[in-house]
Amino acid sequence: MRDLLLQNTRPMGGPLADILIRDGRIAAIGPTLAAEGVAIEDADGRIAIPGLVDAHTHLDKSLLGYPWYVNEVGPKLIDKIDNERKVKKDYGLDAHIQSMRQSLQSVGYGTTLIRTHVDIDTDQGLIALEGVMETRRQLADVVEIEIVAFPQSGLMRRAGTAELLDRAMAMGADLVGGLDPCGMDRDPKGHLDTIFALAEKHGKGIDIHLHESGELGAFSMELIFERIRSLGLQGKVAVSHAFCLGHGDWTMTQALIDTCAELDVPILTTAPPSREVPSLKRLRAAGVRFGAGVDGFRDTWGPYGNGDMLERAMLLGMKNNLRRDDELLMALDVCTTGGAVAMDRTQHALTVGGRGDVVIVEGETVGEAIVTHQPRSLVVTAGHVVARHGVTLRERP
Amino acid sequence: MRDLLLQNTRPMGGPLADILIRDGRIAAIGPTLAAEGVAIEDADGRIAIPGLVDAHTHLDKSLLGYPWYVNEVGPKLIDKIDNERKVKKDYGLDAHIQSMRQSLQSVGYGTTLIRTHVDIDTDQGLIALEGVMETRRQLADVVEIEIVAFPQSGLMRRAGTAELLDRAMAMGADLVGGLDPCGMDRDPKGHLDTIFALAEKHGKGIDIHLHESGELGAFSMELIFERIRSLGLQGKVAVSHAFCLGHGDWTMTQALIDTCAELDVPILTTAPPSREVPSLKRLRAAGVRFGAGVDGFRDTWGPYGNGDMLERAMLLGMKNNLRRDDELLMALDVCTTGGAVAMDRTQHALTVGGRGDVVIVEGETVGEAIVTHQPRSLVVTAGHVVARHGVTLRERP
Ligand SMILES: [Zn+2]
Ligand SMILES: [Zn+2]
Repeated sequence: MRDLLLQNTRPMGGPLADILIRDGRIAAIGPTLAAEGVAIEDADGRIAIPGLVDAHTHLDKSLLGYPWYVNEVGPKLIDKIDNERKVKKDYGLDAHIQSMRQSLQSVGYGTTLIRTHVDIDTDQGLIALEGVMETRRQLADVVEIEIVAFPQSGLMRRAGTAELLDRAMAMGADLVGGLDPCGMDRDPKGHLDTIFALAEKHGKGIDIHLHESGELGAFSMELIFERIRSLGLQGKVAVSHAFCLGHGDWTMTQALIDTCAELDVPILTTAPPSREVPSLKRLRAAGVRFGAGVDGFRDTWGPYGNGDMLERAMLLGMKNNLRRDDELLMALDVCTTGGAVAMDRTQHALTVGGRGDVVIVEGETVGEAIVTHQPRSLVVTAGHVVARHGVTLRERP
Repeated sequence: MRDLLLQNTRPMGGPLADILIRDGRIAAIGPTLAAEGVAIEDADGRIAIPGLVDAHTHLDKSLLGYPWYVNEVGPKLIDKIDNERKVKKDYGLDAHIQSMRQSLQSVGYGTTLIRTHVDIDTDQGLIALEGVMETRRQLADVVEIEIVAFPQSGLMRRAGTAELLDRAMAMGADLVGGLDPCGMDRDPKGHLDTIFALAEKHGKGIDIHLHESGELGAFSMELIFERIRSLGLQGKVAVSHAFCLGHGDWTMTQALIDTCAELDVPILTTAPPSREVPSLKRLRAAGVRFGAGVDGFRDTWGPYGNGDMLERAMLLGMKNNLRRDDELLMALDVCTTGGAVAMDRTQHALTVGGRGDVVIVEGETVGEAIVTHQPRSLVVTAGHVVARHGVTLRERP
């Protein structure tokens, strides 16, 4: 059954309306719709928002279901990367089970579209990719999962990784990943040439983790821009984090932001309170596609987070000092429709013709729903009810 | 009854122990304590932490109990200040009722000590102070409330305000407040001389809101230091926010931080994700007393927040990029015992002789308790049970 009549919702906090979903798409939105042979749910006047979109996470990393991980990891990036590979082995971590756990937790929070980076390295090879692909198959009716083949442990510094990425793309990964071409791999030209070549070979896009800040990040951005331009990959290359776009030098960052707009480079943020981050209003003003994600959570990297993109909308609002209700709507857009657009999906919208992904939330206004992010009343994916009262209907492994 | 035996707790996540409270103080902590004629509560193996300490809030500002406030306020500080005075009049806001609502909500979250700033201005005079003082009287057994007489609308720019502050101190306010001597009042010498004179006259301390960032904030800090030195007010003057201490110029900020240590100037933060803020580790390394607060919430200033200091410990951790469990303990200390010390109270500790304020929290470790900040199982103030399952036992107006 992909036909559903959602009665008595307030779409985006507006006046009461019913939402009719047929064949997985929104067929009508209006007062007191009638339909036969469809399932019916009554939202009892609650607000309806589009499915939440987690545009940056790591489904293979979470330790959900394990005891609390007591973090005693050293301060450097490489400490965290090396520690994670070790813990994965010690725990015998199964990427399929972990990605099932995280995905279903996210579905409980109303997420219906996820872009996940999946670790590809010479220790574990492609096993994490296989696990997450199996999760994608099993949850196809519940949540869309897009996979980035991610060289977490480095590309140029670990011989054999490029070949693994090549095989990952052939197996069905959706995008080629990258990571701090200068700071991590110490060879920006080698790193970027390799991942751009893989993207060209497989006809796929790219999503690069760029934590490098200030002038170093700006340099890497320029190298990325040069390759987009020369290979004609406008619109195909996204940058995650892009802390350098939050740098205080207005002129430098504006030039980068303008080029992101010109070359259609989507930016994906996780809005970490501790870092300089791209400004929501500034990127939108420049016309840059902008999405958000929860990043990894409850893993060996750090303790925070739970997968809730409505809470992330709050953190995005707090980080950007958004206080007005119209600004909170912008933050929600980044975590729903806008984030989907940043992932090249134009149908994730609460409009007729849009995907039948609807989340019924608690709150008098959209602002209150974001700020209090109470358990979701109902989550609908393509016309199926997939979660109620904050809990997914699928059994978690 | 101020005698209570808390059985089967894990103090700070350590081994099982009972906690015996007699006459409002912790009399013993140890395995299987016996006591006669006392109330008994079983924590069932849950973690015990000290009472949470909210060292910076505004009990008179919240719109709790009213419909969601749709924020359409302009971008400037003065827009927010002028709008707030107008809304207070339009709503007929009663500072006693609002401060009861907020205080009891905070008690439900485990807060047992609050420092609140209370607006004193020539529009409303001392009525908000009277209302919050009435709340303090009514809740004396539930939560300690310390009051700062706060010239929110300016001091030098509004004739008559200094006289009102003088009367506020005579009525029983605990500290003299101040606000951005340059940025708001445009007369740093006049502003600071006035509030220091009031503090001297009444033999009370000072707590100044200092949002001024960078070099401007550093200038105001220096003016504050000069007055502390010349008047011998070491240990009596706190600075709230102190964004300038988070400025990127290491040398400039280190000099300020070192002087805060030398003159014993406590710093109180609300850890806003959007601002440069004093670094927790850096201030503690310098020996500066450091506390945290929720600031105003759900008011005309902004939509975020709920009064939960355990969630604030998480935000403080996120802002300071604290990932290790030992670092999370530091964040919790700032939100409990350390915050109390910043308020000159050395007895808010989970040790024999400490105040009998104990919060029983959910989580396998203190880290998990902070990160998930689930409803508090039990809140005890000076040996009384004051909240269960996240809900205060006192009726809210
Ligand atoms: Zn990531
Ligand atoms: Zn304040």
